[in-house]
Amino acid sequence: MFNIPRIANQFSHIIADKINQKTKPLGALGQLEQCATQLVTIFSQKVSSEAAFKAFTPVLNKPTLLVFAGDHGVAAQGVSIAPSDVTSQMVTNFVSGGAAINVFCQQLGWLLEVVDCGILHPVASPSVHNCRLGSITQPLNTNMAMSIEQVYRGFDNAKQLVKQLSLKGCNTVAFGEMGIGNTTSAAAIMAAMLKLPAQQCVGKGTGVSDDIVERKIAVVEQALILHKSQFADPITLLAALGGFEIVHITGAMLAAAEQGMAVVVDGFICSAAAMIAININPTVKEYLIFAHCSNEQGHRLMLDTLNVKPLLQLDLRLGEGSGAALSLPLLQASLGFYNKMASFADAGVEQVVS
Amino acid sequence: MFNIPRIANQFSHIIADKINQKTKPLGALGQLEQCATQLVTIFSQKVSSEAAFKAFTPVLNKPTLLVFAGDHGVAAQGVSIAPSDVTSQMVTNFVSGGAAINVFCQQLGWLLEVVDCGILHPVASPSVHNCRLGSITQPLNTNMAMSIEQVYRGFDNAKQLVKQLSLKGCNTVAFGEMGIGNTTSAAAIMAAMLKLPAQQCVGKGTGVSDDIVERKIAVVEQALILHKSQFADPITLLAALGGFEIVHITGAMLAAAEQGMAVVVDGFICSAAAMIAININPTVKEYLIFAHCSNEQGHRLMLDTLNVKPLLQLDLRLGEGSGAALSLPLLQASLGFYNKMASFADAGVEQVVS
Repeated sequence: MFNIPRIANQFSHIIADKINQKTKPLGALGQLEQCATQLVTIFSQKVSSEAAFKAFTPVLNKPTLLVFAGDHGVAAQGVSIAPSDVTSQMVTNFVSGGAAINVFCQQLGWLLEVVDCGILHPVASPSVHNCRLGSITQPLNTNMAMSIEQVYRGFDNAKQLVKQLSLKGCNTVAFGEMGIGNTTSAAAIMAAMLKLPAQQCVGKGTGVSDDIVERKIAVVEQALILHKSQFADPITLLAALGGFEIVHITGAMLAAAEQGMAVVVDGFICSAAAMIAININPTVKEYLIFAHCSNEQGHRLMLDTLNVKPLLQLDLRLGEGSGAALSLPLLQASLGFYNKMASFADAGVEQVVS
Repeated sequence: MFNIPRIANQFSHIIADKINQKTKPLGALGQLEQCATQLVTIFSQKVSSEAAFKAFTPVLNKPTLLVFAGDHGVAAQGVSIAPSDVTSQMVTNFVSGGAAINVFCQQLGWLLEVVDCGILHPVASPSVHNCRLGSITQPLNTNMAMSIEQVYRGFDNAKQLVKQLSLKGCNTVAFGEMGIGNTTSAAAIMAAMLKLPAQQCVGKGTGVSDDIVERKIAVVEQALILHKSQFADPITLLAALGGFEIVHITGAMLAAAEQGMAVVVDGFICSAAAMIAININPTVKEYLIFAHCSNEQGHRLMLDTLNVKPLLQLDLRLGEGSGAALSLPLLQASLGFYNKMASFADAGVEQVVS
């Protein structure tokens, strides 16, 4: 369904040489060096000759952050402090520009788009993409959250959205989410994918009490037993445990990789989507840049299992794509040093190698 | 010598209320909330009434990064892979705009100034501040690195530089450093201040071999024995173990706090200067924002001892102020959400408290 090109590494020695010739000790820019290497590799896929590669200047074009919103039937099971109504209220807040993600995108240079994947009370605004798969999922502890057909429809929507961005020249995307109840869905996905007990995957979400955490664990355990036979296939797993926004994020990651874009991965929910995307097509991982390790218990373990080290750890637990948004200056700094720093030869600095 | 106003907290409840009324779960912006609280507190010192405080919009004005360069006699003791000549070569690189710190400052919006505190080969350029205390320090393992008089002269220089920035309207400063051999000096300062064995404080600097690390440890041990009687007073400690750039950074931190500026602290060397500054006047700590935990062994321990959590951990080990530079967008995001995010009441979002 998604045809993702494997990233060619034919010029990786040129990238390494260029980075190592910059006026700095070897490796001294740490994670920015790995980030630069990954971005240059992604963006240079169509560069075919060594000469053209050496002249190539990678840049982030029209970085765009899509916030996907969806409501979760499981929210009514007492797993969240907020009612599902808050999802729609926050979408209204996104539209009027008052949320954290609005402030961060405006300040840091992301274009922001809002997608209704299925929320309880649709927000009447021309600036919200209509990708509704319903108005709320089924409670995952008693039913399949959605049908297989809804999962595929979500993937199609996501593919269309990403293609539109690519046509406009965007080469860097990030995804955020809003959906009361969605840490429960993501924790269930994590437990099912990694075959871990619910307790290791469920956290406090937006800040629930210990009692609610207990209830979340019980709900996830119920879902894991009920849907056990669905977990071998990532599509049925998504239908059983997912949310409308999580389905869209999974599809959008795969679609963006297919378009050769860099994909910036936000926190716990988006990382759960990334795990499923990687399960569907492992090549997608080469396009993923992990932005932030959130404060949600389970996220660190998820990232360790994926063997990735995120750029930021700011104790955020907000969602909306906030962690991804905040990483943009670091991506720009990575390409900045790659494109603009002087080499030892340029600057007349002695190169000393231990 | 430095008269630093204690930060008044009379409006701290207003700051907390304002942050907690933003459309997000309580505490969900993690370290950005602490950063916003600290910045607002620093910048609002002259706001006297509650009404004025509520109308006050804190902003970062003319953020300026000063790179202080100095040479170290100890470099000739085989503690570094690079010769002292490289310090001057890198200063030339700063002047011509080719170093990492040039790229990061230009991209992120720092004004950059370069200060010669005493390097082996002065760089003839009108854009380098002349604050030379000599051309190189004495080797700290055999001599006092410098005289007490040089320390005070460095403090005076720093005070003048910071005052000039304050007069121009700058309210946010960061300090960086360049000086072959300066991780040895900083490790010795750390060991002396925290009464730790050299082994726990010495690291690989810009990437030296294990053999050189052994030599660094031996050199620091020698210095700790030789100068033991100097460590009760931070000024004599600095004279014994410091570098010309480290003296200036220490003075500049104290002077900036005196001017009511926010001070962004870079990596291992700057944190060593911060420890001394805090020892001289503990109130300075209220003005310090720790930007980055570097890859230099000892830095994590130093930050833990100071009981601070830096904003970034990117495995940088470059110096130049690079970690401090990269934190600027996070400072801006902190004030951004504080100033611009909608409250629950503004946005019509239900506020749910667990």
